[in-house]
Amino acid sequence: MAFPRQRVTLVTLGVADMMRARRFYEGWGWTPHQPEQEGVLFFQMNGAVLALFGISDLAADQGRADAQLGTGAMTLAQNCADDAETDAVFDAAIAAGATPLKRPEKVFWGGYSGYFSDPDGHVWEIATNPFWPLDSDGSLTLPSG
Amino acid sequence: MAFPRQRVTLVTLGVADMMRARRFYEGWGWTPHQPEQEGVLFFQMNGAVLALFGISDLAADQGRADAQLGTGAMTLAQNCADDAETDAVFDAAIAAGATPLKRPEKVFWGGYSGYFSDPDGHVWEIATNPFWPLDSDGSLTLPSG
Repeated sequence: MAFPRQRVTLVTLGVADMMRARRFYEGWGWTPHQPEQEGVLFFQMNGAVLALFGISDLAADQGRADAQLGTGAMTLAQNCADDAETDAVFDAAIAAGATPLKRPEKVFWGGYSGYFSDPDGHVWEIATNPFWPLDSDGSLTLPSG
Repeated sequence: MAFPRQRVTLVTLGVADMMRARRFYEGWGWTPHQPEQEGVLFFQMNGAVLALFGISDLAADQGRADAQLGTGAMTLAQNCADDAETDAVFDAAIAAGATPLKRPEKVFWGGYSGYFSDPDGHVWEIATNPFWPLDSDGSLTLPSG
């Protein structure tokens, strides 16, 4: 086993309408890596990739029917530099077509956090966490202790 | 907006039984960052963090009921160095309690890929992709062109 075990290479979002999903992510400020190929669109992230892929194809890949696939129990968080950036990133997503679940607000653990769902129901948290400083590229290395 | 837009800081898996989920990820070879705190357990990954969090708390965070949360439409992939490593990583997950959805096999796009679900139904793909060489830390930078 050549690589560290604790990794994610790719996060795949099953989408019902590729054009609608693409419009949302581009509208939110993301740039695809290259034109869509064979029904999949990739976005380079910090050491990993986000993919948009047809929900039926994703179900078939898993060997099961579309109806069994659901959203919301696995969520993605994007941490920001400060509360103002959190608000701006959240508002940009809503403007691009996301559905607000909870507007960013102060939360009990000392941060500032909101949730939205994308056009296919995939859930993102946008947050500020003062206890977790980000690296210069926006990556996160957990503080020790 | 200080940081690159295309990032994931945290992937959160809603879990029904924290001890069961923890046993699975530890059994698969993952090491938690620190003891569980306030019902959440973190694992450092390559520039991002995986979190296990109670499914009811995750639903409440999103402002909705547990029953609305589902799995499978968002999946995580871990790419490996070669087919043998893919098999070994897949088999280690099954041995730790995962449910196989599709054993690794040659797939149409030229790679080798299998899927399993963890004890809470979260879906992982374990794959070899000969077109996507990994960085030395196992991170992925998409090739140009």
